[in-house]
Amino acid sequence: MDLEAIFNPKSVAIIGASENPYKIGGQAVRAILDCGYSGAIYLVNPEHENILGQKCNGAIQDLPLGIDLYIFCIPAAETPEALQRVTERQGRAGIIFAGGFREMGGRGVALETKIREIAGSRFLVVGPNVAGIVNFHGPLNATFLPSWRAFPKGKVSILSQSAGMGFAIMSALADENVGISKYISIGNRTNLDFPEYLSYLRDDPTTEIICIFIEGTERARELYEDVMICAQQKRILVRLGGHHKSSARTALSHTGSMASEPALYRAALQQAGCMVVDDVREMARVAKFLLYYPAVDASKGPAVITHTAGPSIIIADTLEQGGVYLPELAPQTQQKIREIVPEAANVTNPVDTVGGAAFDHRIYIRCLETVLSDSRVGLVIITYAHLLNPDIKFPVREIARLSKQWKKPVMVCMIAPRFSRVANDEADEWEVEGIPVYRYPEDAGKTVVNLYKVFSRPN
Amino acid sequence: MDLEAIFNPKSVAIIGASENPYKIGGQAVRAILDCGYSGAIYLVNPEHENILGQKCNGAIQDLPLGIDLYIFCIPAAETPEALQRVTERQGRAGIIFAGGFREMGGRGVALETKIREIAGSRFLVVGPNVAGIVNFHGPLNATFLPSWRAFPKGKVSILSQSAGMGFAIMSALADENVGISKYISIGNRTNLDFPEYLSYLRDDPTTEIICIFIEGTERARELYEDVMICAQQKRILVRLGGHHKSSARTALSHTGSMASEPALYRAALQQAGCMVVDDVREMARVAKFLLYYPAVDASKGPAVITHTAGPSIIIADTLEQGGVYLPELAPQTQQKIREIVPEAANVTNPVDTVGGAAFDHRIYIRCLETVLSDSRVGLVIITYAHLLNPDIKFPVREIARLSKQWKKPVMVCMIAPRFSRVANDEADEWEVEGIPVYRYPEDAGKTVVNLYKVFSRPN
Repeated sequence: MDLEAIFNPKSVAIIGASENPYKIGGQAVRAILDCGYSGAIYLVNPEHENILGQKCNGAIQDLPLGIDLYIFCIPAAETPEALQRVTERQGRAGIIFAGGFREMGGRGVALETKIREIAGSRFLVVGPNVAGIVNFHGPLNATFLPSWRAFPKGKVSILSQSAGMGFAIMSALADENVGISKYISIGNRTNLDFPEYLSYLRDDPTTEIICIFIEGTERARELYEDVMICAQQKRILVRLGGHHKSSARTALSHTGSMASEPALYRAALQQAGCMVVDDVREMARVAKFLLYYPAVDASKGPAVITHTAGPSIIIADTLEQGGVYLPELAPQTQQKIREIVPEAANVTNPVDTVGGAAFDHRIYIRCLETVLSDSRVGLVIITYAHLLNPDIKFPVREIARLSKQWKKPVMVCMIAPRFSRVANDEADEWEVEGIPVYRYPEDAGKTVVNLYKVFSRPN
Repeated sequence: MDLEAIFNPKSVAIIGASENPYKIGGQAVRAILDCGYSGAIYLVNPEHENILGQKCNGAIQDLPLGIDLYIFCIPAAETPEALQRVTERQGRAGIIFAGGFREMGGRGVALETKIREIAGSRFLVVGPNVAGIVNFHGPLNATFLPSWRAFPKGKVSILSQSAGMGFAIMSALADENVGISKYISIGNRTNLDFPEYLSYLRDDPTTEIICIFIEGTERARELYEDVMICAQQKRILVRLGGHHKSSARTALSHTGSMASEPALYRAALQQAGCMVVDDVREMARVAKFLLYYPAVDASKGPAVITHTAGPSIIIADTLEQGGVYLPELAPQTQQKIREIVPEAANVTNPVDTVGGAAFDHRIYIRCLETVLSDSRVGLVIITYAHLLNPDIKFPVREIARLSKQWKKPVMVCMIAPRFSRVANDEADEWEVEGIPVYRYPEDAGKTVVNLYKVFSRPN
């Protein structure tokens, strides 16, 4: 199914365009005008001749034939008629923001059936009941949220059954300096569902990683198969939700088949090659790692190098809670490290240089080189407490060079408060050089657990 | 034991003061000079007459008698002699940064025994092997980290067996806009250990909450008893660490008594009235809540109000995973909400206003008032996806007023990326009005789980 009319439309029309910033139609016009979209824009509203300096048409009939994408900013009840007009004018696709369809029951179900009939399989419908879609590479912001243009552009696409959780994933990615390719709010699924979007993203050259939020689907078997095909070309991360009992109002008595469902979904999705995470931040952190390093050799263990024991202990704890163990370094590795570090240092794994390395960074470089040369080690976590002192800088470039030279991932756990400009600049410097940064030992540990889980899976 | 000579000294002397910013003695001088400390400062170094505009003394013997706090920036091997001189001049307390004592074994053990003998019980020693202490209210920065003055001042004190994890906790608190009272790095415990520091913090009027990082202690029984006494006056949050097998180098074979130890520590500390958390961010988030609301009535359940279903589902999931259930709202509450929200809305718990409330905030105020009036509800979580639109603001003040009026905690889960100035300003506004803000549904949910765990404990 060709979804280019949705993601890269040559022309867009907004039905229910408005000048009023407190209306969805007002925000949608701003979103499309401000995002840098380069195609033709048509506005429709019988009450205006002009909106924000753009000509406004009185009716759908006044628009040219064959517009690619229609954005409906009108109430549910008015949608079927407008949709009918639009299909008559050979429109190709539409986004329906309005809620009040099948999710409402009663009258809403009838409205949605009508829409489904009018659209058929030829006119593609995003929604209804969605926040819309964004293609940061288009660029195209087909939502009612003009401010979204500020999110960074990149290679991770979001496919979310909940507009709000899609936004949470987008925010978590941005918080980790990870750029976004597409945002897709699935909503009620008229003729586009997970399989259709997944198939599009699988072939999308600007998508490397797909982050999915899923509550459930009636087409679970199909989802499983499509995810499996897609996972051969793109990394898929999944956050499951909605398997709680509160909404069923049967808090304690209800522990039967429904409660086992999330475990089933999880197992099936993992089987299909997805990484299932427990938190949207975890998702963003794993995505970040995978953008820097496409894989981990899980037959070799992780190693930790530090100047501060406590955080390395927490990393070790977190790893072990997730079933990942720090291998003992080879005797010759330990011997070589012993020559670099002070007597009080720990030369096993974690390697603890006991303070000296906080000031003298050459120690880090030499320890890292030695640890990377150990054939038992597949990945190295460097963890340090940032001194917040502009005079003392980490040898970022040299460490990045060693990672490339040894072809083994190196990640950094840099502990520092967010208010510190000096630390934030250093974090940026790491990532510019190709080393992903995590701020807390728990995060570094959990990211590695997730990575080892997926990369030690038999294929 | 009176620790005022450490936390509120009238005079401080730095042994091994330096002009060189790449030496610990150079950073320690900068820390004390820059922090706003108002007592007398004495510097000691035979090689300088002047350091950063301050007079420098040649020897300890040149200093006046009875200085409160000595900061030792000299190597381990030189420490016993200096300590001897200092006690002869009736010094009261000292901080020893240097490592290389008992933790190193061999020669280090002998050095530490010497220090212990010289100090006796009269001369109080912080460390050795520490980052020092900070009293943000003094103010006094007795570390080698001058930049720490930038941390916010407040009511949470940190007691950490690891300097690095203490810094991680401090950073996590700052990230949550929580101010700090004392930072204490325990290190090797010469004559000050958990019990002594806990007893000081218990009586400290600027400490309301104590965050502890603990790896283990030989005085576990005493710790248990002191924590229990302390917990009657102050809230105590604990992060346990160091119960991993990697450091023991026996990754898989070693699952006996050692592995059960963290469970024992956890159970004992919870029994003593502490809240044991699994992440330093969790610790900071619970601390924040407790600063705004000292308690939760755990006999009543939490309620969620939202305009975006997905995040409320994740909150419900997280609560249930932690054993906390959303009570069904009373029939009359549901009926009243039905009159406020659109037909498609969910009037149970979570209350989902389906989108309308994202633009029309009066709906939130009216729903909140109704939910707070329900006797089954003890706490309310409001969750929303921030529109990042400066035109659309939440009725922050009205919601804070309702929380006060009904004497029930209200917390906010505001989903937004950190780059958004508009959203950050709104987060600040909430907290100025007394409503703690969390950024992701998982965080709001886990915070509530931790709160219900401790407040439903039989006393």
